[in-house]
Amino acid sequence: MTIPWNHHYALRTRRMGSSAIRELLKLTEQPDIISFAGGLPAPELFPVAEFQAACQKVLADQGTKALQYSTTEGYLPLRRFIVERMSRCGVVASENNVLITSGSQQALDLVAKLFINSGDNVLVERPSYLGAMQAFNSYQAEYVSVAMDADGLRTDLLEEALRNGVKFMYVLPNFQNPSGITLSLERRRTLIETADHYGIPIVEDDPYCELRFAGEALPPLIALDARRLAIAHTNGGGLSHGNVIYMSTFSKTLAPGLRLGWVVAPTEVIRSLVMAKQGVDLHTATFTQMVAYEVARNGFLDRHIEEIRTVYRERRDRMLSAMARHLPEGVQWTRPQGGLFLWVTLPQHVDSGEMLADAIAEKVAYVPGTSFFADGSGKNTMRINFSYSPPDVAEEGIRRLGRVIARWMEHVPDMEAEAVIA
Amino acid sequence: MTIPWNHHYALRTRRMGSSAIRELLKLTEQPDIISFAGGLPAPELFPVAEFQAACQKVLADQGTKALQYSTTEGYLPLRRFIVERMSRCGVVASENNVLITSGSQQALDLVAKLFINSGDNVLVERPSYLGAMQAFNSYQAEYVSVAMDADGLRTDLLEEALRNGVKFMYVLPNFQNPSGITLSLERRRTLIETADHYGIPIVEDDPYCELRFAGEALPPLIALDARRLAIAHTNGGGLSHGNVIYMSTFSKTLAPGLRLGWVVAPTEVIRSLVMAKQGVDLHTATFTQMVAYEVARNGFLDRHIEEIRTVYRERRDRMLSAMARHLPEGVQWTRPQGGLFLWVTLPQHVDSGEMLADAIAEKVAYVPGTSFFADGSGKNTMRINFSYSPPDVAEEGIRRLGRVIARWMEHVPDMEAEAVIA
Repeated sequence: MTIPWNHHYALRTRRMGSSAIRELLKLTEQPDIISFAGGLPAPELFPVAEFQAACQKVLADQGTKALQYSTTEGYLPLRRFIVERMSRCGVVASENNVLITSGSQQALDLVAKLFINSGDNVLVERPSYLGAMQAFNSYQAEYVSVAMDADGLRTDLLEEALRNGVKFMYVLPNFQNPSGITLSLERRRTLIETADHYGIPIVEDDPYCELRFAGEALPPLIALDARRLAIAHTNGGGLSHGNVIYMSTFSKTLAPGLRLGWVVAPTEVIRSLVMAKQGVDLHTATFTQMVAYEVARNGFLDRHIEEIRTVYRERRDRMLSAMARHLPEGVQWTRPQGGLFLWVTLPQHVDSGEMLADAIAEKVAYVPGTSFFADGSGKNTMRINFSYSPPDVAEEGIRRLGRVIARWMEHVPDMEAEAVIA
Repeated sequence: MTIPWNHHYALRTRRMGSSAIRELLKLTEQPDIISFAGGLPAPELFPVAEFQAACQKVLADQGTKALQYSTTEGYLPLRRFIVERMSRCGVVASENNVLITSGSQQALDLVAKLFINSGDNVLVERPSYLGAMQAFNSYQAEYVSVAMDADGLRTDLLEEALRNGVKFMYVLPNFQNPSGITLSLERRRTLIETADHYGIPIVEDDPYCELRFAGEALPPLIALDARRLAIAHTNGGGLSHGNVIYMSTFSKTLAPGLRLGWVVAPTEVIRSLVMAKQGVDLHTATFTQMVAYEVARNGFLDRHIEEIRTVYRERRDRMLSAMARHLPEGVQWTRPQGGLFLWVTLPQHVDSGEMLADAIAEKVAYVPGTSFFADGSGKNTMRINFSYSPPDVAEEGIRRLGRVIARWMEHVPDMEAEAVIA
């Protein structure tokens, strides 16, 4: 009997399922399409020469070590480097609070593996990061989603949402993917207090924290939580307790093709994540960790991030002014202070998912916003990436998008016509 | 309320739990200990110069591509390279049958994610690879284990074992980790037929296939299964169906520090694994895939594997003769035709787990065999790695081990003494 494979794992794939939208987005790889759909950093900023030098040095000085198996926790100098960087935004951790992961996507998977049993609720922002929900879905998570406004997650709705019972709260406080919105300081404090009051962990996903190009930096939740606990760090022991699991990545500051992210959390949580990671991939590639450390050290990463910020600020500004010129009245968008994305809201009757095929025909692409809503709402929204396309290309893309939107805004849905067809 | 973390994931970590043995094995990293415990390739064989040249070339020619996000399926030239290599052992696949993974450990995790729901049975060899069981444990697998003899898994016991209902059969046909035993051709055929008769998938883990240094190569299960199906491959379409999911790795032939493995399976299975991998880490590092391909191509990998085989053959031979000289009568061991490990069986009353602390005091280490038994048996066995230590070091290690074993063989357990202490 030749095996009908899907009988064996129907349950699992149902929740991971490929969608019509994903199929459409594959078309955006065609070279003549201006795609705002990806979450790609600007490749022309990758420090290729520095990577060449680092590869030579690592292989010449420590070649056999770089190519051998290594510890699940990650390369110690890189963990210490992360500790030092995190201390700048008020996170007093030790290397025992740090786990290197194969991109921050793996951090999401490992957290899900530890926490989520089939049917458990996860609290997410509405909208929230699609990739996180894909990670959680494979453990059969359910969702409780809480609305956002211009100051981020509406913490006034938290208590009611928590009545459903949730395993953890998943939030992206800085320049959220997909909305570009930043959680205000006051709400960060409320969130921390609420987590503490109900004893519910916070998973803080912060891939863009260093990509702020406007406004003032706000402390991460994990720093606010440590301050609340008034943890004495005089012994340099790092975080022994606390309610926040923090994750970030080198994908937006160095290069995504390395797949290097990290988790900062209380030592006990790190120990459990290490055990989980051991079964998942033994450890993150030794070579990429050593090369990334070699590139980043001695102040290079700081100088490089400054360059990225300058370029992304300009791209955001040019994108915003192109939108003001080319998008029809009645369309709204966010003005993020950092990160890679902004968020467009169309009039209620325009479905951005339905509109996508038309946009692709016009050679422009975006991600329909509904993909980011755990409850399937948000049909009139879309995510736009501003980091990837050079400004002149982006301007042309927005011009095309404006034409498409204008057509769809005129097209008021005709229920009767549909009824006839049915 | 500061969160008592383990309340949140007690269920999950219980099955991943760190053991006393693992703690002991941490001691084996001390430089004065001769460790046969690891599964490390000989680092002096790593082709460091070739990696240097490859890094330069990849970054110079395709730097921005190598550092950017890439597809979940993996780097196409590397997938084609794998197709070509697999064709040499009778596997007619296409690139659509190949998924690149972050080490073959990730292949195990992804398969488990697709197939295992809490409480599902997995059929494993007794003993079997510890890392696979760690991967399966995190999905709450249960085990049905089937004894092995010198010809591998005892297929005469299969039908009875399958009566328990199993989700898939997990086997390592070549130079098994931990036992070093190879599954005979006749039993491979029986296994394939049984899988087909009952419609139960086989997961074939084959990390050492290219490291055969004695005897004749046997076809992998996936090739035998395709032959059984008499699949017509004239259209070059690869495997459209079949009952085997095959996995292997570059860890033993190029370098484990890259974390590069792969799965070959029917296209439908690959599609589902790709969806699962997307949520797990998006994709395997672009840079390491491109560098590995650059190193391996143009015949280098073949020449390099020839060198590894020569060295490992000598190390096995020297290890076997050291054992003949230094291990007490009554101790038995396997004589593998390839791979990295051999398997030692002590007299029934000697518990290799209890003996380990004593061995470490004598500055020699191994993995107690019971770690590899799903049913907790095998207390008088141990896994010995022969690939890592140079022959003279290994000889000294075996001499030390012989002394420890001789002491423990004299020590007949005294139940009365224990009773008094209790």
